[in-house]
Amino acid sequence: MILRKIRSEGLSHNSYFIADSGDAAVIDPRRDCQVYLDLASSSASRITSVFETHRNEDYVSGSLELSGRTGAAVYHGAALDFSFGRPVSEGDRFRIGRLELAVLETPGHTRESISLVMRDLSVSPDPLVIFTGDALFAGDVGRTDLFGPEKAEWAAGTLYDALHGKVLPLGDGVIVCPAHGAGSVCGGEIADLELSTIGFERAHNPCFQLDRESFIARKKSEHHYTPPYFSTMERLNRAGPPVISHIPRPDPLDPQGLEEKKRTGAQVLDTRSPEAFGGGHIPGSISLWRDGIPSLAGCVLSYDRPVVIVDDFDPRPDPVVKRLVRLGYDAIGGYLAGGFPAWSRSGRAVGRLETWSVATLREALEKERFILLDVRDQKNRETTGFVMGSRHIYVGELVSRLAEIPKDKKVVVYCDAGFKGSLAASLLLAAGFAKVANVIGGFSGWKAAGYPIEGKVTG
Amino acid sequence: MILRKIRSEGLSHNSYFIADSGDAAVIDPRRDCQVYLDLASSSASRITSVFETHRNEDYVSGSLELSGRTGAAVYHGAALDFSFGRPVSEGDRFRIGRLELAVLETPGHTRESISLVMRDLSVSPDPLVIFTGDALFAGDVGRTDLFGPEKAEWAAGTLYDALHGKVLPLGDGVIVCPAHGAGSVCGGEIADLELSTIGFERAHNPCFQLDRESFIARKKSEHHYTPPYFSTMERLNRAGPPVISHIPRPDPLDPQGLEEKKRTGAQVLDTRSPEAFGGGHIPGSISLWRDGIPSLAGCVLSYDRPVVIVDDFDPRPDPVVKRLVRLGYDAIGGYLAGGFPAWSRSGRAVGRLETWSVATLREALEKERFILLDVRDQKNRETTGFVMGSRHIYVGELVSRLAEIPKDKKVVVYCDAGFKGSLAASLLLAAGFAKVANVIGGFSGWKAAGYPIEGKVTG
Amino acid sequence: MILRKIRSEGLSHNSYFIADSGDAAVIDPRRDCQVYLDLASSSASRITSVFETHRNEDYVSGSLELSGRTGAAVYHGAALDFSFGRPVSEGDRFRIGRLELAVLETPGHTRESISLVMRDLSVSPDPLVIFTGDALFAGDVGRTDLFGPEKAEWAAGTLYDALHGKVLPLGDGVIVCPAHGAGSVCGGEIADLELSTIGFERAHNPCFQLDRESFIARKKSEHHYTPPYFSTMERLNRAGPPVISHIPRPDPLDPQGLEEKKRTGAQVLDTRSPEAFGGGHIPGSISLWRDGIPSLAGCVLSYDRPVVIVDDFDPRPDPVVKRLVRLGYDAIGGYLAGGFPAWSRSGRAVGRLETWSVATLREALEKERFILLDVRDQKNRETTGFVMGSRHIYVGELVSRLAEIPKDKKVVVYCDAGFKGSLAASLLLAAGFAKVANVIGGFSGWKAAGYPIEGKVTG
Amino acid sequence: MILRKIRSEGLSHNSYFIADSGDAAVIDPRRDCQVYLDLASSSASRITSVFETHRNEDYVSGSLELSGRTGAAVYHGAALDFSFGRPVSEGDRFRIGRLELAVLETPGHTRESISLVMRDLSVSPDPLVIFTGDALFAGDVGRTDLFGPEKAEWAAGTLYDALHGKVLPLGDGVIVCPAHGAGSVCGGEIADLELSTIGFERAHNPCFQLDRESFIARKKSEHHYTPPYFSTMERLNRAGPPVISHIPRPDPLDPQGLEEKKRTGAQVLDTRSPEAFGGGHIPGSISLWRDGIPSLAGCVLSYDRPVVIVDDFDPRPDPVVKRLVRLGYDAIGGYLAGGFPAWSRSGRAVGRLETWSVATLREALEKERFILLDVRDQKNRETTGFVMGSRHIYVGELVSRLAEIPKDKKVVVYCDAGFKGSLAASLLLAAGFAKVANVIGGFSGWKAAGYPIEGKVTG
Repeated sequence: MILRKIRSEGLSHNSYFIADSGDAAVIDPRRDCQVYLDLASSSASRITSVFETHRNEDYVSGSLELSGRTGAAVYHGAALDFSFGRPVSEGDRFRIGRLELAVLETPGHTRESISLVMRDLSVSPDPLVIFTGDALFAGDVGRTDLFGPEKAEWAAGTLYDALHGKVLPLGDGVIVCPAHGAGSVCGGEIADLELSTIGFERAHNPCFQLDRESFIARKKSEHHYTPPYFSTMERLNRAGPPVISHIPRPDPLDPQGLEEKKRTGAQVLDTRSPEAFGGGHIPGSISLWRDGIPSLAGCVLSYDRPVVIVDDFDPRPDPVVKRLVRLGYDAIGGYLAGGFPAWSRSGRAVGRLETWSVATLREALEKERFILLDVRDQKNRETTGFVMGSRHIYVGELVSRLAEIPKDKKVVVYCDAGFKGSLAASLLLAAGFAKVANVIGGFSGWKAAGYPIEGKVTG
Repeated sequence: MILRKIRSEGLSHNSYFIADSGDAAVIDPRRDCQVYLDLASSSASRITSVFETHRNEDYVSGSLELSGRTGAAVYHGAALDFSFGRPVSEGDRFRIGRLELAVLETPGHTRESISLVMRDLSVSPDPLVIFTGDALFAGDVGRTDLFGPEKAEWAAGTLYDALHGKVLPLGDGVIVCPAHGAGSVCGGEIADLELSTIGFERAHNPCFQLDRESFIARKKSEHHYTPPYFSTMERLNRAGPPVISHIPRPDPLDPQGLEEKKRTGAQVLDTRSPEAFGGGHIPGSISLWRDGIPSLAGCVLSYDRPVVIVDDFDPRPDPVVKRLVRLGYDAIGGYLAGGFPAWSRSGRAVGRLETWSVATLREALEKERFILLDVRDQKNRETTGFVMGSRHIYVGELVSRLAEIPKDKKVVVYCDAGFKGSLAASLLLAAGFAKVANVIGGFSGWKAAGYPIEGKVTG
Repeated sequence: MILRKIRSEGLSHNSYFIADSGDAAVIDPRRDCQVYLDLASSSASRITSVFETHRNEDYVSGSLELSGRTGAAVYHGAALDFSFGRPVSEGDRFRIGRLELAVLETPGHTRESISLVMRDLSVSPDPLVIFTGDALFAGDVGRTDLFGPEKAEWAAGTLYDALHGKVLPLGDGVIVCPAHGAGSVCGGEIADLELSTIGFERAHNPCFQLDRESFIARKKSEHHYTPPYFSTMERLNRAGPPVISHIPRPDPLDPQGLEEKKRTGAQVLDTRSPEAFGGGHIPGSISLWRDGIPSLAGCVLSYDRPVVIVDDFDPRPDPVVKRLVRLGYDAIGGYLAGGFPAWSRSGRAVGRLETWSVATLREALEKERFILLDVRDQKNRETTGFVMGSRHIYVGELVSRLAEIPKDKKVVVYCDAGFKGSLAASLLLAAGFAKVANVIGGFSGWKAAGYPIEGKVTG
Repeated sequence: MILRKIRSEGLSHNSYFIADSGDAAVIDPRRDCQVYLDLASSSASRITSVFETHRNEDYVSGSLELSGRTGAAVYHGAALDFSFGRPVSEGDRFRIGRLELAVLETPGHTRESISLVMRDLSVSPDPLVIFTGDALFAGDVGRTDLFGPEKAEWAAGTLYDALHGKVLPLGDGVIVCPAHGAGSVCGGEIADLELSTIGFERAHNPCFQLDRESFIARKKSEHHYTPPYFSTMERLNRAGPPVISHIPRPDPLDPQGLEEKKRTGAQVLDTRSPEAFGGGHIPGSISLWRDGIPSLAGCVLSYDRPVVIVDDFDPRPDPVVKRLVRLGYDAIGGYLAGGFPAWSRSGRAVGRLETWSVATLREALEKERFILLDVRDQKNRETTGFVMGSRHIYVGELVSRLAEIPKDKKVVVYCDAGFKGSLAASLLLAAGFAKVANVIGGFSGWKAAGYPIEGKVTG
């Protein structure tokens, strides 16, 4: 038996490769599917089945891509009418060598969510592993708000029933392999565990310490963002995303080439650090660090315009392109060869963004007048508190709420550590705000420095 | 939390790397320790602790090697007086970032065997993982015969008590991380599972289906080989093996160079397939395929003479050297550049070994007279049966039992598939037996072809 | 300026990547074109031009493949009517950053052969490098027999004129970058040099020590084989070969799967060593070691039937597939998982081939009666001599000349070292010859052992 | 024959690996010598000889390191009394398989400089390649100022005589392999060529267009910097540098750990871009981008204090460590895990450096009063001109000339593109200058923007 977890950085997405006796399956593959082909080669097996635990809303599914390279069949939960693949239902069983995967319908996160129970029939007919998709994570369960508020109660109850009625009874000794690790947009409280078991979750997952009513209440009270790109992902993943065959290799651009791309509609994505963006940037560019792409690009980049990448000297566009393509941004317009220094060396106009340390903020609060904007997500603000006097707009909603901020005032932005703040500040600059600053170190630095905190939820 | 299993091919040995918050530990490191340094780099952590679950007898410990590169402390069970490292006892606790490792003394395989219980204190004070060393495997437990027959009962009972008294009570949901996977010489029935849990083992491990008395009886009735090199490993691992700093890169040799090495005492190790050894080989060389080295080199190679490697055209000596060095064969005399064809092209004498298919054997049994020698291990012979008329000497004992075979007769050797048979045949040829043949396909082929089998244990 | 030589193993084929200031070109790309994309990435350049120095007859051009991935323009000599790309003529100039490539028509090997003279205009308008394609090699010039005997004189004279009229006048200090290194089928005497210059070739290339008449005489007297697959290559390379996008990953097969493939027409290609093929093989398979594929597969494999690969235990089919695909064998039927031992373990019929050492041959010549067949190429036989009494049929022509060998006699084959002999012997076995042996070590071993040699050309 | 050039990034240093028939040699190895061992493995050869063309002053020689790993002999020119290795003199010949290396004494750059003439005796007794060390580069010759001004004439004449008397007569067709490419501190005008020949250099190298007298005059008029670390390199390379066996893996540090290192004397090296350093940095740190280390670290880092590395989020300390160790900075105190953001997140004090665009500078020149400091090297300033009103101190000399700059004035620094400017500005900040700015884009940007230039040498 071979079982490998494949982590996709930034997305906190896990896919799984299992193989036995020359046969292999992949669960929830990502779009850049070379990794599965390599595992198949090294294990002398042939990928014959691809399973999707649910229609993902946070990345483009790699099922068609992988099926195109291998001829594997694609399987989905039957409760959604996909335009490709084959429906599977409760109790369907699949053999991968001596392994068996059995379908458990575990709706709640989405209607067609399934879990897959793996047995090694060469050892025992009892289950050994469960692939839970977005139904159950280490320390959390899937979000149930995607059906809208009117169905929130039904969705939460449905998930409760599936978990308690089907998953927990499998037994404490069953290993849990979820589709996401800590940091995913698909569950707010996912623990930073490499591995878990039903027994461990039963004892320690807060969601399992509640009765049905309390569970539903908890789920209904959760706040999740639904970024605009979710709808694009859902549409693509239902219809079958375009097969690209290769992750594109972005063309190098010189400053003139980049300028032309920009003139003809390209979005300039600056993947450098907040400090570097502060010290100098291409006017109009969007500041979004590499590992923020999976969770935030979908909130701020358009699908209709090509993306041009600006990195530091010694640019590494390939990991950026990979992250973009996983989200369906297939139109990559190139990257600035030589990185930002090539731009400044060309004598072109350079933008700057004030960077404030937390000490600067502290002093300024007593002396200056400005709008202090907290762009962290709401839960973070609620649970850890905030800087006195700060207004709150989540960075993912900033573009649609710009009108709430007066353009003639100085705006100082902070987030957790300075990265999302740089994104927010770049959006403000691009929208014509003239006086903007970003607090590097963010709320983490503020707190570590021992400065006063407001509104913290006790306990 | 980061937890990675590092598999060492051939040995079926698992070591583990765990890290959290910049701190890291390694459990049972192998000697070629670059892999741990790479994991530390990629996880931005520093290896501060190295644990040995027991004094290994089947490979050279990498603890001193790794400690020399990192400054990490080395910890052993207190019940043996090691010449290096520090003793640990029941209940000792170590912090690796937010993780805690607690020592559980689990003797029986060796006196100082320990298990390490891992908790993630950021999640719960309950155990999540147990590193069981050679105390508990997936589907089996450690061998308890190493103390000798007079202590067999005591050792088995001691292991039973540790497993039932300390390990099982940790709870079904705890993940089990043993020091060996299927195929190890340290446990005969290790299952081919990637992962297991206490719950799964409690239910399915045959050793847990027995009461204390039956368990002891089972363990006493097991037959294990104790290859001669075990004593070398034990001595090295207690005293602290030599630190080599780099896996040696073997020098290329031309046929003349190899001949000189041989003349001055080198052992010629032929790592090609049984078919290739049959078709032509250097007279006097030992036929041992690459992945047979970990379990068999210690039975047939001397520690006092350098080893010279012969591979096929396009030789790849590095993985061979790695396997040899893991066993303490540090004196590598070089490898034949260009592989065996360089030898035959030089016009030098070429040895051959008859290769028989199972069909040839079937026919010959009816027509010819020869000694048919089964060189599989005893358990294999007992459980799967054998070819009628075959005598049995395990390949690992053949050198010391050569006198039992008449030199003037033709000897036909078979094993499971042909590899150990080739080793045995090469030993016979080197010992001066003139008429030797090896059955390629071995007993597996014989059985698959539907030929008659003797002595099979029913059920 | 960046200039990189990419060697394709086995083919002795060189392609070149040049880049400057973000612009790049590739000369004579191979079909597995990832290497050029990687070079473009690491040099931050964009491949805009692909040049073919001539329509290759010995491998499938990668121009369309690379153009499909990059959008680069493809350029050919104008004297042949290609179905794709654009014609270039004497004096055409192309800029790659500050580099200039100028076309020099250098026909003779083929009608449309061109060389490309590279200047670094940032340094000097004088030439620095010449890419000579198959017109000029280190120590040899291109073969001129491909037009047929009636045009042999014209072709040789044409090449002479191009070399003396255009190439030599460029000056001694110009570096020569040819399309082939030692071992190519495109020139018999290519020296084993990494680098050469016009000055070095003028002084040391035997072809430059002759006047026009002697040069033509020499070229007319050369003997070259024209393997059957040349015509397929020529057709594909003129029409534009199919774009495959990925080198296929062969599926693993178990013995039963392989048997089915064979039954439905697949060719079984055994890439192991002659010794291994001797010790045991799948009946009917073709013995052709990995690095013999580029020069010999085209003589013995059909383009109409899929190829199934058999390697040793721990099979590595990928490099084999790459070599096959470079020759246009795109239909890969899979490979035997576990290598040949999986076959013998399955109890299926095993073929064997007697392997003789040169000493065995020596003795047998005095005692036995058999047909001794020399399958080396003719030039080799002529220049180094042969074993007394041997008949000669080049291995590449053996299939079409089988009728010349009596089937009822024992046939002993030898070649240079045993590899081509194994191929020839496997063809004989597959054709129904019952008694066949292969001399491992071949003529090299025979000579090294000091045994008598016949027919050696003196000097 | 195998010949490979190994480029060491940043240093513009070339070493060479040559091999034939199982024997190999390395010329001018660098300290991280794994690359040569890998080439030896892949070419099935054994490194038996290491040649140093001269005692290098710009990096730590890897000869002892490589000799320690392989047992190879080390050879130097006889004119200097090295504490290790063996002296070689004019005409000494060494065989590497069928290759021959002959020593040519070519002093002038240093007294004991040698060139090595390579012949492939299997092809011709004529020379094919010359390894010229620092005697001859593509487009330049070695600097001759290291003996001091009183010997300048002698040194230049000596080099002239060696080049004209020994190197040029080898013939135009000989390929030139120098020890440095464009960008080295060992020759100011090295062309950006991958390859050259004696013929090409004879025609195009400016130094070969002069008679002896003019050549000496040119060399005497050249201006080269002699950074302080040259003397350390010379001492180490004469005495034999310490053998380190492994490039150290730096430990991750958290902000507190870094602070402690700093308190106990460590130097903080910030390898981020000028923009990032501007946007926020650790007070007192030195701004030196990764590829500036080889040429500038030796001017600004002490050998007596450990170096601690600060990089951007996602830090990559290994290439930084490699560059430092090549210069003999073996005491690596660690690196900041998480990069600079970890520092700002910890709430600690953050320094900032104003970044000016060239447009800002243009405007400020008309409005403000400040000291404008040009820190480029003198030749650059002389040949390309400068910004009106700027004073000049080369960044490599800034530390020793700080007293020339008034501390109470604002100082605006510019260099070529902004990198050396950031270094200079960081040195000023560390020295207590309060008002400092760095012009990103530097003189390149200034010129590209079309702003006025002073003092340009016409032509």
